[in-house]
Amino acid sequence: MIVVMERNADAKDVKEVLDRIEEMGYETHSIEGISKTIIGIIGNIDREELINSLGAYPNIEKIVPIQEPYKLANRSFKNEPTVIKLGEDVTIGGKEITIMAGPCAVENEKQIIDTARAIKKAGAKILRGGAFKPRTSPYSFQGLQEKGLKLLKMAAEDSGLKIITEVMSSEHVELIGKYTDIFQIGARNMQNFYLLKKVGNAGKPVMLKRGLTATYKEFIMAAEYIMSEGNYNVILCERGIRTFEDYTRNTLDLISIPVLKKLTHLPVVIDPSHGTGRRDLVAPAATGAVAMGADGLIVEVHPHPVKALSDGQQSLHFAEFREMLRNLTKVARAVDRKIISY
Amino acid sequence: MIVVMERNADAKDVKEVLDRIEEMGYETHSIEGISKTIIGIIGNIDREELINSLGAYPNIEKIVPIQEPYKLANRSFKNEPTVIKLGEDVTIGGKEITIMAGPCAVENEKQIIDTARAIKKAGAKILRGGAFKPRTSPYSFQGLQEKGLKLLKMAAEDSGLKIITEVMSSEHVELIGKYTDIFQIGARNMQNFYLLKKVGNAGKPVMLKRGLTATYKEFIMAAEYIMSEGNYNVILCERGIRTFEDYTRNTLDLISIPVLKKLTHLPVVIDPSHGTGRRDLVAPAATGAVAMGADGLIVEVHPHPVKALSDGQQSLHFAEFREMLRNLTKVARAVDRKIISY
Amino acid sequence: MIVVMERNADAKDVKEVLDRIEEMGYETHSIEGISKTIIGIIGNIDREELINSLGAYPNIEKIVPIQEPYKLANRSFKNEPTVIKLGEDVTIGGKEITIMAGPCAVENEKQIIDTARAIKKAGAKILRGGAFKPRTSPYSFQGLQEKGLKLLKMAAEDSGLKIITEVMSSEHVELIGKYTDIFQIGARNMQNFYLLKKVGNAGKPVMLKRGLTATYKEFIMAAEYIMSEGNYNVILCERGIRTFEDYTRNTLDLISIPVLKKLTHLPVVIDPSHGTGRRDLVAPAATGAVAMGADGLIVEVHPHPVKALSDGQQSLHFAEFREMLRNLTKVARAVDRKIISY
Amino acid sequence: MIVVMERNADAKDVKEVLDRIEEMGYETHSIEGISKTIIGIIGNIDREELINSLGAYPNIEKIVPIQEPYKLANRSFKNEPTVIKLGEDVTIGGKEITIMAGPCAVENEKQIIDTARAIKKAGAKILRGGAFKPRTSPYSFQGLQEKGLKLLKMAAEDSGLKIITEVMSSEHVELIGKYTDIFQIGARNMQNFYLLKKVGNAGKPVMLKRGLTATYKEFIMAAEYIMSEGNYNVILCERGIRTFEDYTRNTLDLISIPVLKKLTHLPVVIDPSHGTGRRDLVAPAATGAVAMGADGLIVEVHPHPVKALSDGQQSLHFAEFREMLRNLTKVARAVDRKIISY
Repeated sequence: MIVVMERNADAKDVKEVLDRIEEMGYETHSIEGISKTIIGIIGNIDREELINSLGAYPNIEKIVPIQEPYKLANRSFKNEPTVIKLGEDVTIGGKEITIMAGPCAVENEKQIIDTARAIKKAGAKILRGGAFKPRTSPYSFQGLQEKGLKLLKMAAEDSGLKIITEVMSSEHVELIGKYTDIFQIGARNMQNFYLLKKVGNAGKPVMLKRGLTATYKEFIMAAEYIMSEGNYNVILCERGIRTFEDYTRNTLDLISIPVLKKLTHLPVVIDPSHGTGRRDLVAPAATGAVAMGADGLIVEVHPHPVKALSDGQQSLHFAEFREMLRNLTKVARAVDRKIISY
Repeated sequence: MIVVMERNADAKDVKEVLDRIEEMGYETHSIEGISKTIIGIIGNIDREELINSLGAYPNIEKIVPIQEPYKLANRSFKNEPTVIKLGEDVTIGGKEITIMAGPCAVENEKQIIDTARAIKKAGAKILRGGAFKPRTSPYSFQGLQEKGLKLLKMAAEDSGLKIITEVMSSEHVELIGKYTDIFQIGARNMQNFYLLKKVGNAGKPVMLKRGLTATYKEFIMAAEYIMSEGNYNVILCERGIRTFEDYTRNTLDLISIPVLKKLTHLPVVIDPSHGTGRRDLVAPAATGAVAMGADGLIVEVHPHPVKALSDGQQSLHFAEFREMLRNLTKVARAVDRKIISY
Repeated sequence: MIVVMERNADAKDVKEVLDRIEEMGYETHSIEGISKTIIGIIGNIDREELINSLGAYPNIEKIVPIQEPYKLANRSFKNEPTVIKLGEDVTIGGKEITIMAGPCAVENEKQIIDTARAIKKAGAKILRGGAFKPRTSPYSFQGLQEKGLKLLKMAAEDSGLKIITEVMSSEHVELIGKYTDIFQIGARNMQNFYLLKKVGNAGKPVMLKRGLTATYKEFIMAAEYIMSEGNYNVILCERGIRTFEDYTRNTLDLISIPVLKKLTHLPVVIDPSHGTGRRDLVAPAATGAVAMGADGLIVEVHPHPVKALSDGQQSLHFAEFREMLRNLTKVARAVDRKIISY
Repeated sequence: MIVVMERNADAKDVKEVLDRIEEMGYETHSIEGISKTIIGIIGNIDREELINSLGAYPNIEKIVPIQEPYKLANRSFKNEPTVIKLGEDVTIGGKEITIMAGPCAVENEKQIIDTARAIKKAGAKILRGGAFKPRTSPYSFQGLQEKGLKLLKMAAEDSGLKIITEVMSSEHVELIGKYTDIFQIGARNMQNFYLLKKVGNAGKPVMLKRGLTATYKEFIMAAEYIMSEGNYNVILCERGIRTFEDYTRNTLDLISIPVLKKLTHLPVVIDPSHGTGRRDLVAPAATGAVAMGADGLIVEVHPHPVKALSDGQQSLHFAEFREMLRNLTKVARAVDRKIISY
């Protein structure tokens, strides 16, 4: 960590800071520049402790962290990419790009069974579908809850798919864990630290969605929360950030793929449906994601988008989904990855 | 609600949409413009249901909501400003601007007792202090938890102050409710809907902090979640939004004060400490807030900021806090409000 | 255009607005909803005139434009994509994806000649290089100016390349027009309206870079300025927008490609160098751009990035550039486009 | 400046960088930490030269500048605040807060004469009014140009006011300089470097508006461009930044006032009209600005906002303006400043 002293700090001010750092047990090196003094701090540093202590000195201009705050997610902790295995033939993070698809919300038996069969037939491996739904309005449909989980399970078994579904509250981790293969943490809960810890102990893979306004560092730190409880099977999911542009629902940050794969060893999945919010942009977004190295896609598909109880405007019809996968297969091959489509 | 059809939608496309809307039970009016047709929808509309249904029609360009999605928080529901009473002499939302102050985290008995006495002596009415702390890193100090709540209670009783403290998880609502006078919901949990519902049932006032990237509408909708459970004593707290500027920790959005007070009847509190993240900017920010109509301030104060376990860089010394209040008293008077300082 | 009246507007308020609109020569239709009245305005509307006039009525809540404000750039004005021809074998907007490359700034004869030969050999068609440089600091290298233009011309002729170079001021349009094949308007000048009009009259294609914080609509309106002077050969260039994320120099908005190509008929070029600001991200960004339908790429290449006078951190070595093009050729083929590489 | 080497950089990599820095004439100090090496660079550093040279080394993780890039605008260059004098009794930057007001655009003789008289009578000292208008659409009213300047001059002389008006192109500096007392550079031209240099040589004060997405540093660097040409009479004007919030036209960043006044010695003016875009928010924004230390306000006033050719929705009526000034007088007094109102 580096401490930059204010221009008008004198020798006494510098000494006071040096003393405080040494009192905390670190080694220091100071460099006197032409107008300002900087102090380098050496040791296995507790970042927040240091920032809190030093931040309050009036003559410190800024504190520059040098080491990344995340440890377990860091490439320097584990260099080979993490490959998550679900049963015999489903992996996330390997050469094959994993396709997850399904409706925004589980609505009824026919809807979820039909969708599961259609996506399986097109090439998907994992069924998505919300049973507990985070809704901006308290007056909107909040999901079928446990009944939805049961339908999801039935549809997945019928088609031979794995399940991913969202958990919104630490109180539901146990219940949802009975049905799902992967826990999904939504963007709004990315920093719901109690929930992160709870799924960190639940013994199943977790897909963590990036908060609307989370930096890469904050996103990785949220994964670190889960990993620090002993669960290393974390999948990072980019689903659009909030910017000034309002033509799309969010701005899908595709460059996050190579960045996150450089900084961490975790698999990266893209959600082109929430990332764009418009059906006509789902396929272009998915194509870019595959070309740029995504390890998976999670896509909203619905038998009749115009009758969907949620997210109809960004859900693909079965035929659109199937055609998209076929085109993606060619792009995956061009970048030496693999997508199965029929 | 208004539906704008795409330029190339023909009469058949328009009819299909009109039929769907009428099937849902609403009255329609369509207007044929030079290049596009628009449809007005009349009735007590379920926004999300309509948006979901119509959003998926390929020939609809956009859907423009006309009514605000919030009902209970709306000025049109209740025109007089909400005044929250805590015991006999503490109110939030009246002529007097309510001062809340205290350390970021409760650290030990002496720290919290000293701080409570100092802020009381300066003019504050409510003691803040975190017992459960949301921390970006799992490796940082997470708060004293129940022990912290007990210390907070002891300090508040000793000084004759009310308490505000953060609840981070629905599992802690009951416990924290035993100690606090006001629940605080942090910015990261603004859309933790289960938590919102839980505090909506807890029978005590709730101060809801605006999420880093929440629009006014989303912020008010989160308050609506709490109110829809029957708890109307909600306080809105602006604490800085995230922008491209990185000189300050956040960008404090002071214009939110007149906006939120126009759109809702709820009291608005400003947090100049998190809003700026820099001790030298706390007083200017608080001054602006008072001038612009804030109903309260929540300020970080610590006996020794350089030794604080968290947020030292934005905490005021006792003397700074006292001087700030004295200056604010004059500004409050200039805008026909009242701040008590000694 | 639609006018939404405030909830508390009465019949007299509505009539006043209706009268004003009719006085301006438009036809009106009003719809009385349950809580608010909306007014539809029909005719070939002068948006800004209407917004200015009506915006000041105190009982109007909001004004919702229905027609796009751009005409000449609109797909509804011209449906086939614009293909720009430069001499016999260089086109922008056709099946072949056009590669533009070169140093940030022209520094000396050897640098530009070597670069031109290297990029030509790799497959590029157009040489980029700044002679007039927009620099954040007045104390930085500002470019070789006319001498730079001459070197650029010499290098382009030596290698058989076309030229693109930036014009920063309306005073230089004539001079730069003597040397360049395409004018580049930088992001900082996207709304320098005098400059836009000037290049709109200069008789050569113009590549317009998106401002750091320009919405799609504002970006297209800036193109409309150029086109409204009679120059229809405009290329749109996305080069990153400003967000809260600071790991990359900017956030490259790749979804802009399908959006801009849907809304307009103009070719879209991506700048992965400025868009990311990091050499290791240039190839992934370019790969995504090609997969998502970009009509061209503009890439910074330098013989010795570590000795570059500007943008060294985002410039590719010759070998990196060549390898990138080879890989892009495969991706282009997978999406039925063409990139020439050797 | 500090250079942070990548974790995997070895002694040879570090040496290569050290050699390059020393070759450029600077002194170095390196500190080996537990996982990374950092290098301190000492001397009067040419930031951009260094960043460009070093940025391209593959083993450098990041470069952290220590000195501010601006010199002449810096408080460390000149500590006393700059006070700009216009004739005998108008100053900007002194104890009195300077009020500038007038219509968005000069429309005709009666409009500008009436407005000048009304604002003078209320307490304003400087008349604003656009003769050359930057408009997002090429089809909108572009201003009366020289005729507008003449009317502005006539109105100012009639009422005894000074003039501020916008210059949009370097080609107009001479013409506008014949009429105006202060040049205004609009937000869209904040980084139009040729224009900045031109007004830097024009011998009259310049008010520079902050770009919609300019950081404080970039804003100050733009002022530095003007100052580096010898013109030290620069006024900084905050007029709202672009964020995700769309209820207001922009997000007015009031905390910029204490920040800019700490970092520079230049006067800071707030534009509450563009900063909010809504008439009902102009007075609250102005009140906050005065309380927080603004040296001036620039406000849109129009005899009949509902008939204005531009910005009617954010223009005050004469009576509203007068009442606002009266209220501001009390707030100014509370923070030991002065506003004249009648």
